[in-house]
Amino acid sequence: MLEAKNNKILGFGEIMLRLTPSNNQRIMQVNSFDATYGGGEANVVCSLANFGHKTKYITKLPNNSLGDKVIRDLKSYNVDTSNILQGDGRLGIYFLEIGHGLRSTEVIYDRKYSAISMANKNEFNIEKMLEDVRLVHLSGITPALSKELYDLTIEIAKFAKNTGILVSLDSNYRAKLWSLESAKEFLEEILPYVDIAFLGNLDMVNILKYESKKIEYEESLKDLYEKLFKKYPNLKYAACTKRSVHSINNNSLKGYLFDKESLHVSNEYNFDILDRVGGGDAYTAGILHGILENLSSKETVEFGTCASVLKHSIKGDINLVDMGSVSSLIEEGLQNIKR
Amino acid sequence: MLEAKNNKILGFGEIMLRLTPSNNQRIMQVNSFDATYGGGEANVVCSLANFGHKTKYITKLPNNSLGDKVIRDLKSYNVDTSNILQGDGRLGIYFLEIGHGLRSTEVIYDRKYSAISMANKNEFNIEKMLEDVRLVHLSGITPALSKELYDLTIEIAKFAKNTGILVSLDSNYRAKLWSLESAKEFLEEILPYVDIAFLGNLDMVNILKYESKKIEYEESLKDLYEKLFKKYPNLKYAACTKRSVHSINNNSLKGYLFDKESLHVSNEYNFDILDRVGGGDAYTAGILHGILENLSSKETVEFGTCASVLKHSIKGDINLVDMGSVSSLIEEGLQNIKR
Amino acid sequence: MLEAKNNKILGFGEIMLRLTPSNNQRIMQVNSFDATYGGGEANVVCSLANFGHKTKYITKLPNNSLGDKVIRDLKSYNVDTSNILQGDGRLGIYFLEIGHGLRSTEVIYDRKYSAISMANKNEFNIEKMLEDVRLVHLSGITPALSKELYDLTIEIAKFAKNTGILVSLDSNYRAKLWSLESAKEFLEEILPYVDIAFLGNLDMVNILKYESKKIEYEESLKDLYEKLFKKYPNLKYAACTKRSVHSINNNSLKGYLFDKESLHVSNEYNFDILDRVGGGDAYTAGILHGILENLSSKETVEFGTCASVLKHSIKGDINLVDMGSVSSLIEEGLQNIKR
Amino acid sequence: MLEAKNNKILGFGEIMLRLTPSNNQRIMQVNSFDATYGGGEANVVCSLANFGHKTKYITKLPNNSLGDKVIRDLKSYNVDTSNILQGDGRLGIYFLEIGHGLRSTEVIYDRKYSAISMANKNEFNIEKMLEDVRLVHLSGITPALSKELYDLTIEIAKFAKNTGILVSLDSNYRAKLWSLESAKEFLEEILPYVDIAFLGNLDMVNILKYESKKIEYEESLKDLYEKLFKKYPNLKYAACTKRSVHSINNNSLKGYLFDKESLHVSNEYNFDILDRVGGGDAYTAGILHGILENLSSKETVEFGTCASVLKHSIKGDINLVDMGSVSSLIEEGLQNIKR
Amino acid sequence: MLEAKNNKILGFGEIMLRLTPSNNQRIMQVNSFDATYGGGEANVVCSLANFGHKTKYITKLPNNSLGDKVIRDLKSYNVDTSNILQGDGRLGIYFLEIGHGLRSTEVIYDRKYSAISMANKNEFNIEKMLEDVRLVHLSGITPALSKELYDLTIEIAKFAKNTGILVSLDSNYRAKLWSLESAKEFLEEILPYVDIAFLGNLDMVNILKYESKKIEYEESLKDLYEKLFKKYPNLKYAACTKRSVHSINNNSLKGYLFDKESLHVSNEYNFDILDRVGGGDAYTAGILHGILENLSSKETVEFGTCASVLKHSIKGDINLVDMGSVSSLIEEGLQNIKR
Amino acid sequence: MLEAKNNKILGFGEIMLRLTPSNNQRIMQVNSFDATYGGGEANVVCSLANFGHKTKYITKLPNNSLGDKVIRDLKSYNVDTSNILQGDGRLGIYFLEIGHGLRSTEVIYDRKYSAISMANKNEFNIEKMLEDVRLVHLSGITPALSKELYDLTIEIAKFAKNTGILVSLDSNYRAKLWSLESAKEFLEEILPYVDIAFLGNLDMVNILKYESKKIEYEESLKDLYEKLFKKYPNLKYAACTKRSVHSINNNSLKGYLFDKESLHVSNEYNFDILDRVGGGDAYTAGILHGILENLSSKETVEFGTCASVLKHSIKGDINLVDMGSVSSLIEEGLQNIKR
Repeated sequence: MLEAKNNKILGFGEIMLRLTPSNNQRIMQVNSFDATYGGGEANVVCSLANFGHKTKYITKLPNNSLGDKVIRDLKSYNVDTSNILQGDGRLGIYFLEIGHGLRSTEVIYDRKYSAISMANKNEFNIEKMLEDVRLVHLSGITPALSKELYDLTIEIAKFAKNTGILVSLDSNYRAKLWSLESAKEFLEEILPYVDIAFLGNLDMVNILKYESKKIEYEESLKDLYEKLFKKYPNLKYAACTKRSVHSINNNSLKGYLFDKESLHVSNEYNFDILDRVGGGDAYTAGILHGILENLSSKETVEFGTCASVLKHSIKGDINLVDMGSVSSLIEEGLQNIKR
Repeated sequence: MLEAKNNKILGFGEIMLRLTPSNNQRIMQVNSFDATYGGGEANVVCSLANFGHKTKYITKLPNNSLGDKVIRDLKSYNVDTSNILQGDGRLGIYFLEIGHGLRSTEVIYDRKYSAISMANKNEFNIEKMLEDVRLVHLSGITPALSKELYDLTIEIAKFAKNTGILVSLDSNYRAKLWSLESAKEFLEEILPYVDIAFLGNLDMVNILKYESKKIEYEESLKDLYEKLFKKYPNLKYAACTKRSVHSINNNSLKGYLFDKESLHVSNEYNFDILDRVGGGDAYTAGILHGILENLSSKETVEFGTCASVLKHSIKGDINLVDMGSVSSLIEEGLQNIKR
Repeated sequence: MLEAKNNKILGFGEIMLRLTPSNNQRIMQVNSFDATYGGGEANVVCSLANFGHKTKYITKLPNNSLGDKVIRDLKSYNVDTSNILQGDGRLGIYFLEIGHGLRSTEVIYDRKYSAISMANKNEFNIEKMLEDVRLVHLSGITPALSKELYDLTIEIAKFAKNTGILVSLDSNYRAKLWSLESAKEFLEEILPYVDIAFLGNLDMVNILKYESKKIEYEESLKDLYEKLFKKYPNLKYAACTKRSVHSINNNSLKGYLFDKESLHVSNEYNFDILDRVGGGDAYTAGILHGILENLSSKETVEFGTCASVLKHSIKGDINLVDMGSVSSLIEEGLQNIKR
Repeated sequence: MLEAKNNKILGFGEIMLRLTPSNNQRIMQVNSFDATYGGGEANVVCSLANFGHKTKYITKLPNNSLGDKVIRDLKSYNVDTSNILQGDGRLGIYFLEIGHGLRSTEVIYDRKYSAISMANKNEFNIEKMLEDVRLVHLSGITPALSKELYDLTIEIAKFAKNTGILVSLDSNYRAKLWSLESAKEFLEEILPYVDIAFLGNLDMVNILKYESKKIEYEESLKDLYEKLFKKYPNLKYAACTKRSVHSINNNSLKGYLFDKESLHVSNEYNFDILDRVGGGDAYTAGILHGILENLSSKETVEFGTCASVLKHSIKGDINLVDMGSVSSLIEEGLQNIKR
Repeated sequence: MLEAKNNKILGFGEIMLRLTPSNNQRIMQVNSFDATYGGGEANVVCSLANFGHKTKYITKLPNNSLGDKVIRDLKSYNVDTSNILQGDGRLGIYFLEIGHGLRSTEVIYDRKYSAISMANKNEFNIEKMLEDVRLVHLSGITPALSKELYDLTIEIAKFAKNTGILVSLDSNYRAKLWSLESAKEFLEEILPYVDIAFLGNLDMVNILKYESKKIEYEESLKDLYEKLFKKYPNLKYAACTKRSVHSINNNSLKGYLFDKESLHVSNEYNFDILDRVGGGDAYTAGILHGILENLSSKETVEFGTCASVLKHSIKGDINLVDMGSVSSLIEEGLQNIKR
Repeated sequence: MLEAKNNKILGFGEIMLRLTPSNNQRIMQVNSFDATYGGGEANVVCSLANFGHKTKYITKLPNNSLGDKVIRDLKSYNVDTSNILQGDGRLGIYFLEIGHGLRSTEVIYDRKYSAISMANKNEFNIEKMLEDVRLVHLSGITPALSKELYDLTIEIAKFAKNTGILVSLDSNYRAKLWSLESAKEFLEEILPYVDIAFLGNLDMVNILKYESKKIEYEESLKDLYEKLFKKYPNLKYAACTKRSVHSINNNSLKGYLFDKESLHVSNEYNFDILDRVGGGDAYTAGILHGILENLSSKETVEFGTCASVLKHSIKGDINLVDMGSVSSLIEEGLQNIKR
């Protein structure tokens, strides 16, 4: 367990109910759904709580048993929920048909009109939200939900920047929520306030419209990151992963971390998959952990990648592994049975 | 099995996904939900299909796997789904925490913004919908969902009346959807076109503001029905039930049918409950079956009540019993085991 | 636990796979079946094994994993399976739709062409089967399966009679298997060799065509038993129960035992029901236990009735309670929690 | 929701893993167990947290995933777990075979050698444990686990008394843990420090050896309480319930509260049962809630009884109902469906 | 969705209940079975319905809830069931112990004496069955069930040939049902009426006794097909697959289609397996779809192979994927998540 | 099925309840556990019973339903349980969190204070235990549980040696139970009485402190075995396996058998894993089967390895495959479906 910290890591964003047919079945086959609760930013925060960090979460939930259930779940991870709002509106839902072999996983989003997406930004007291906070983690999903949330996200980032709180941002582009153009506008508006950016090759090429003439993947990525850091000298770190999809049940993953100077690359891991959702959030949490714990960039990218690899072995969106499990994978590799 | 009929019974209204924690648990306890699909008017139509009638259903569903699943389920009951619309919007959902003993059952509705509630009435071709239809069943839920559906419901009733199609209406007042005043306005507008009205004591007293000075329940009910039929001489039948709730798991039920002349009363049945939702719709289907099959009013009210009683022994919203099972309960009473 | 005995109680008959939709659902609703294995005579024998008796079972099973499974289950109850035959043919199956409240339970039999029903009586070595046997329990189901089994049942009874082995017979009339006339012929042929007969009022009136002018139930039953014992002076005991069905989930039961002299009557018990199948076999086992352990007739009928009452609280066909549980119900009544 | 309070309600005692065969099956039938976590004092504290009180729990748990799981569960109820110890030892377990109808429920305890039962009292810092505490709830189970815990329980009660913290004690006699004599010794040693005593008729007669010549139940109970309060004038309240067991699935309950002046009696409630364990703890929590919220004694005993009644409708040991649900049962009685 | 077609694709054959222990367990381990319904010809027809074709099925089912359930399932796929017979007899069953890793999958057939296998061919009205039919799909399983069905199958093929309906035949040799000699006799009798033959290398070598001196697999296959088409010039297409079994959970598959001129070969796909049963039927449906939709032979064989590959990712016998999913796999390859 | 044998194979040791979260979940995620029963020596004996050998087991179990359940399970495998003791104490438990991909499997042992570990060696009558026994199988787990069991294990080995009963020993080192030094002492004390030793490279190097200068694995293993057999000329066979862990879900395995003369090596098998626990015990059982059935050493090591490979496809600790399945894998390799 880590030393107690004085400051908290704050996440802000939507939490949804995920409904999944069991055993890789299709919706038409089942008469029940597995139910878990998660969301990009919450997954990151809960994973950091599992690594021993002090955490806090802000969202708006419906004022009913479903909202209460989300709060209970967050509390069980030791996340401070005291500033979460409850009020009118619904809980966003998504249905996940997990594929198998060469059948793709399919998502049906039913997240419109959720309590948070219909909230007014004035319901949130930024100053109070950021009290005792050391790092705030934001993503490109929340601003895509409404104009109010767009503005609120920018304001949070600005306020944090001004008061010395670290800002982490995961691009997390969702084509169903907004256009590449809107995402570009958002990224360009927020990046001046960001310290740690989770942006990959495709984000820089497709959204930000950067170009690189390098052909080899890593050279190209480094080239793009250098352009990004040149434009936004406030950036301290940028990170992403490269995934190779052999089958829905088997992928390989490699992590990248750019620290203004070098592009650090993790080992590549091949692994079977139990649940792929939240793999990226687990990587984000691992990278933030390394940065906050002052690990070297090399150690940090390895930690992030192994954290993400382990997430793929956990059902649900949230990475239910502690720091020791990640370290053990890095240092000793796979152990058959830990008796 | 009944003789084939030339005409269909049409239902029109919303179908929702019902999510139920298993084994009487609360939402906070479970990590899965049982999933069934139903809705007031659809429950009536499927029950009539199970009695051997030709049936058809009209609704608007989302254009995704959930919408497809609803259509598959309706088809499996032999309901004609060829006029169902699919398009943008979501599938309405409700969460059902089934109580136990002296703990009440609780419902969380998440039905706003559903595909049907956001539909434009012009999307529906009334003339085509009512082709080959012998009776159309409507309820007071659908007009409460939107102004468009309010107008459409009235138009369907008028068109049916004008073309000699029977109109059945279940009041089905839902306080979460609209006020008593709005419900009154609707009932007064539609009742001139209705042949068979499912209205109970409370509907006439609380919504329509009728009064009776009779004290005894049945006398009062008859008095109210007589006032109703005087005002709406088009009415042929009115029906309702009286339920005594001894525990969430045990109720008693008695049915009433008024046929312009007399108030026919069924036997009272006491029964354990497996699933209470749809008990009223099963009664409605049973009464409609009796009327369409030209049973006597006495036989009809007994058939409706027994159909409803049996529904309480079936999981899900829809009454999965055939005509023979209802008749057998009426004629032979409970059989221990049918080997 | 009882003192070890030198002799075994033998059962002979069919064992079937029972497939049951869970949670009182109908076949059309489910995508799985609960699977248990049982059969009238086997239920009696396993229940006696649970009371501590030495037991043995004879049947013919298919030569596949289903047959092996039945043998494994019998062995787990400590039943001697060494004389069971395996060969060609199928395992009989029945589907059980358990009702609820006022919905009746329904059975679909799929037992035709089972290995035992197609067996030749010469496959069974009666002399070897009855080695070390103290009591053989037969029923009216097995002889109804085939002519071969009819003859074999009679031969077993004769051989037992001649070698001093007690013969117990449960009438167990099944209208789907044969006519009342055939059952009458069988009963009249076997009764001269029977010591303990499980025959009720309806068996004597409908099958054997006895008549009684007594109106009150117990007097009439006694009258019929006296006629029976007069015709078959070899009989030592006859027993039956009277069941009142309040709901599929709640019955009352009373046991009767005639011992040539008096009709002994148990207390009447009212009880909720978890699984009703095998309730009669549990009674039979309880009565046989009392007789074999030399309990008084009064104690025996109470033991049998309480054994049957407890069976209704056990899922599956077989009464999974030991002697202590039955005695405790008789002596102390229902205990809330046995900590 | 209640007004925020400055002080916490503290519980101290063991928490166990409860393993239950599903659907009223016996251990021999199942290949899985339902798993919940609970214990007398923890059940009380979690129930109070569900009523909106600030709570805290102290125990010693094993330093493994099972201990972590218990802490996660407590946190999800909003219970302060910061003073819980983790170390060597095991988590106590009990196996619960839930009966049905007239088959009794049976418990197999496997609680010996648990971390808390093998703890040294010096591991617990009483002063720190009772910081910010307003009421401490103790029971007669914990002192029966070891000499160390016996002494610690007495010391906590003394320290609380001396610092103005209310002391609540539930006798909770467990014959498997110690003798009536040892329980008597404990009660006589702790009662001088107790404010609120949960002791019933049998506790006073069988353990404390009080006698009453009154024959009628309530008169006798009042007589005994008067003797108790005479001997221990520090007592402010004593409470208990009377349960009538009609079947494992159906009981009746009546609550009693003595407040130095009168014996207040609740209505009697008859109810079906989903899970009976923790029914007494729910009553205790309801009574404590009434006292702490300054309800009248009449209101308090009704609240406690209704809280207990509702617990019987909840799976697991802990009463998952909020204050509103209890109040609603008192004021409106059973509501069929709360839409 | 495809354009509406005027003519239907008809399947004729047996449908069985499949009982499968869950999670790769053996029969001896489980107390429940997963239940699905399927059969070679029905799997083909339902898969074609999922691709948007108009379909119809003919079989004979028992006149009970199991027969009704099969009809409900077919209807849910939009298959016309109006000519299905119900009558005496049982529903065929097979038990499927799904292997894992290097443990083989084992099947226990319990299909004897099924309603269809005991049917008289005169119960079926061939003229009516083939009304509005464009293609009839037959297999070598049905004629192996009885002499009546053998004759009926031949008659259907002849009638179809004479009235211009396409005939598709899947050899589907089952050694448990008949000998190689009987299968040869059947194939030689029916092939003159067949347009599309699903016959593989082993069918031609082992059953039809053709020989090829080519060593390389594809050359040999082409050689054999040329001999086949020479003998039966009525043939338009022949198709088969080659499967490499790396483990029960991982296979590779390659498809072949011969169109009188060339042998078209699909890409080879390696894939993990969720459920292998029905993989061949999915291929057949895919090939028939390509032919009926006038795809090129190259497109057709790729479509068939990808359809089969996707089936291995679906639980149950029937390929629950639409045309778009197959096309997407062909054109874009595996997509990780379709959001 | 094998020919009946006159002598039994005896196992002696602990049997535990294994509690496993389903579907690779973590303890913190689940509200139920899968329950199976097993233990090293019992797994070997049950596997041998499945191969058709006569077997017997000795242990001490608690005198409650859990102990009864273990006996029932053993009986179902046809293991003679007549000498098993039941008395005070608990049933040892272990919790198994099965990993996935690159997440390791974790075990929480809760086996302390079990009935057998607290037993006195005088409770066991060695002479009676070994009556009719042909081979006794012991392991290094049991002597690590208590001093009494250490002494008893040695005494059993000595008694067996003196009376011509074969002694098999599996080293099975458990670091949580004792030190390398204690294990060394035990092995050196018992090896003079052992005929068949299951000891691997690590056992000889880490525990027995043997050294080999050979670098290549097989040469080194042979070298170590030669040293072992030189020191203990009583040894007839030694065996072990080498496992390569590619992922928790995929391993490779190779078996080794030394017969005083040569080191026999099996083929290497790569396989997916359903349940890894008991893989070693299945190997042991396979080797003992080969030796007792007089297979050649080459055949024996292949049989043992294939038996172990198949175990990895079976849920639970015990290898539920018969001799035919192992032989079929050896001779025919993987069969796709055995119809």
